[in-house]
Amino acid sequence: MRRSVRELADGREIIYFDDTPGTPERLARDRRKLPVQQPLAEIRRDPLTGEWVGMAAHRQTRTYRPPADGLPMVVRAPGRGRCEVVCFTADHDSSFGELSRGRVRTVMDVWADRTTALSALPGVAQVFPFENRGEEIGVTLHHPHGQIYGYPFVTPRTERMLATARDYQAEHGRPVMADLLAAERAVGRRVVAAGDHWTAFVPAAARWPVEVHMVPHRQVPDLPALTPDERDDFAELYPKVLHMLDALYDRPLPYVAAWHQAPVRADRDVAWLHLEVFSVLRTADRLKYLAGSESGMAVWVNDVTPEQIADRLRANDPVLVH
Amino acid sequence: MRRSVRELADGREIIYFDDTPGTPERLARDRRKLPVQQPLAEIRRDPLTGEWVGMAAHRQTRTYRPPADGLPMVVRAPGRGRCEVVCFTADHDSSFGELSRGRVRTVMDVWADRTTALSALPGVAQVFPFENRGEEIGVTLHHPHGQIYGYPFVTPRTERMLATARDYQAEHGRPVMADLLAAERAVGRRVVAAGDHWTAFVPAAARWPVEVHMVPHRQVPDLPALTPDERDDFAELYPKVLHMLDALYDRPLPYVAAWHQAPVRADRDVAWLHLEVFSVLRTADRLKYLAGSESGMAVWVNDVTPEQIADRLRANDPVLVH
Repeated sequence: MRRSVRELADGREIIYFDDTPGTPERLARDRRKLPVQQPLAEIRRDPLTGEWVGMAAHRQTRTYRPPADGLPMVVRAPGRGRCEVVCFTADHDSSFGELSRGRVRTVMDVWADRTTALSALPGVAQVFPFENRGEEIGVTLHHPHGQIYGYPFVTPRTERMLATARDYQAEHGRPVMADLLAAERAVGRRVVAAGDHWTAFVPAAARWPVEVHMVPHRQVPDLPALTPDERDDFAELYPKVLHMLDALYDRPLPYVAAWHQAPVRADRDVAWLHLEVFSVLRTADRLKYLAGSESGMAVWVNDVTPEQIADRLRANDPVLVH
Repeated sequence: MRRSVRELADGREIIYFDDTPGTPERLARDRRKLPVQQPLAEIRRDPLTGEWVGMAAHRQTRTYRPPADGLPMVVRAPGRGRCEVVCFTADHDSSFGELSRGRVRTVMDVWADRTTALSALPGVAQVFPFENRGEEIGVTLHHPHGQIYGYPFVTPRTERMLATARDYQAEHGRPVMADLLAAERAVGRRVVAAGDHWTAFVPAAARWPVEVHMVPHRQVPDLPALTPDERDDFAELYPKVLHMLDALYDRPLPYVAAWHQAPVRADRDVAWLHLEVFSVLRTADRLKYLAGSESGMAVWVNDVTPEQIADRLRANDPVLVH
C-alpha cells in the first residue's frame, strides 16, 4: 500500500492509501480558490450532566464569536480534536458492502493508521471511526465514505461502558465482553455470522430495530492492535453482514457503523474493541423516531425483539448453518 | 376539578379531570369489542452499559414469546411500569400553546395527581410526564396529548444528573441547579422568559438546535411538591415560551417537552424538578439527525450556539425586556 499526503486548497490534508499496483503518483494540485476551513468553534461542558457538547457554529452562515459574558460553571474549551473523512472507493455508486475483500482490508489498515496518528495528537482522548449511511440519517454526500473523529474527551457512552467493564472485572475476575461473547456463541440464538476471529450477533438488549455487534474473539484495545489474520477475517465477514442488512428490507439499509475503541490514555486494560452497526429503519419505509423516552431520558424502547431481528437477518443468509 | 374514573373496552383505565363547571357526569360506557391490551413485554439490561431497554414486541403483529434460551448475563424482567396518555383538551385542532391559562393549570394538577398515583405503584421507580409533538418526531396522533411513563428503574439520564448533582453538592455545599440558575439569571444572556417562580433559559451547553429549560426558583423534587402559586406562575409562563417556539420558524414546531423529576425512592434530596423542551428542527424545514456521534457515542454536536438560539427566540417575544 502506498501512502501519499497532499494538501487541499482550503488547507486541509488529503491522504491517499493506494492498494492497486500501477496507480499513478498522486501529484495533482488543488488549485481552487477556497477559504481556509474553520475548525469546530468550541466545546462546552453541561454542568448538570458533566457531558461535553460540540458547538459547530461555523456550519451556520455567520461567523462565530464566543459570547462576551462568562459563566464559570460552564467549562469551555476550544474545539481542538480532529475530524477526518475516509473515502472507501473511487466508485461513486458503490457501497461499503460491495467493496472487494482486499479493499475492506485496506480500509481496516487505514482506520488503524489514522487511529495511531490521531492518538498521537496532544488534544485527542478517543478515536472514533464510523460510517453514516443513508438519507434517513441525514447523509447528503452519497459517495461511499466514513468519518473519523478524534474527540478531545472520552465520550459518555464509552465512559459508561468502561465503568461497567471495570465493575464486572472486579466482581468476576474476567472481562464482561469475554463472558458475553462466550455466552452468545454457546447459545447461538442471536449469532448471525462467525469467523475464526470475529463473531457477529444481535445483542440481547438491542436498542435499535436492526442492530448487529461484531466482536473480536481476543481482547484488543483498538484497531492498530489487530493482527493481520484478524483483519483478514473481519474483511471476509463484514461484507456478509452488510449484505444481510441490505437484504432485510430488500433496499439499501440506512445505518450507523460505530467502532468502539479504548481511550488513548485511560482504561486500555478493560476496553474491548468492537463494531456496533445499527439502523433506525423498522420496516422498509418506517423509521424509529427518537422522542421523549430516548432523547429525554436515554431509555430506548424497541418494537422488535433481538431474537426476531436475528431470525430475519439469518433468513437472508443462505450460507450460515446454526 | 372533578375526577371520574371509567374503563375502556380493552380494559384500560380512563380518568376525566373536568375543570369546567356544568360538565355532565361521565357516564358513557365504551361498548366496543376490543382485545385486552397487552403490557410492555419485557425489559432487559444491557450487560455492557448496565442500561435497561424496553421490548415493546406487542406493537408488532405477532404475539411475543420470551425466548427459550437463557443468557444469565442479560438480566430480564417483566415490563411492569406504566404508560398513561394525557389528552390536554377536547379540541382536536388545538395545541398545548393555545390552551387557556386555566387549562394549563389543570394539566399541571393532572401531572401532579398522576405522579403521586404512579409513585405509589410498587414497581415504579421514576415518573416521567412528557409531550411529543409533531410528525417529524413520529407523532401519528394529532390530538393534543402527552404521555406519562412510570419507569420500573431510574433512567440513565437521570442517574447521570443525580450523580453530578451529588458530586457538586459535596464539593460546593450547594445544589448545582441553584448556582446555575443564579448565574443564568445574573448574566441574562440566555434567559428568554421569567416569572416570580420560574425562569426559562437556553442552557449554555444546549445539545439541540432549539432548547429551553424551565426551572423553578425553589428546589422541589417533583410536580406534587409545587405550591399553587408556583403552578399558576408556570401556567402563565409556559404558553409564552411555546409561542416563541412556534414563532421561531413561523410554523408549529415539533418538540419534546420532558419533565425531570426526582426518582420515587432515591436521591430526592439532590434532585431539582425542571422541564426541558427541545426540537430537532434546525431551520423551518431541515432536521438535525442523530447519527454516529450522537447515537453511537452520546456526543451531541450543535450547529448553532445557545446565544444564537436565545436571540432568535427573544426576537419573537415583544414583551420581554432584559
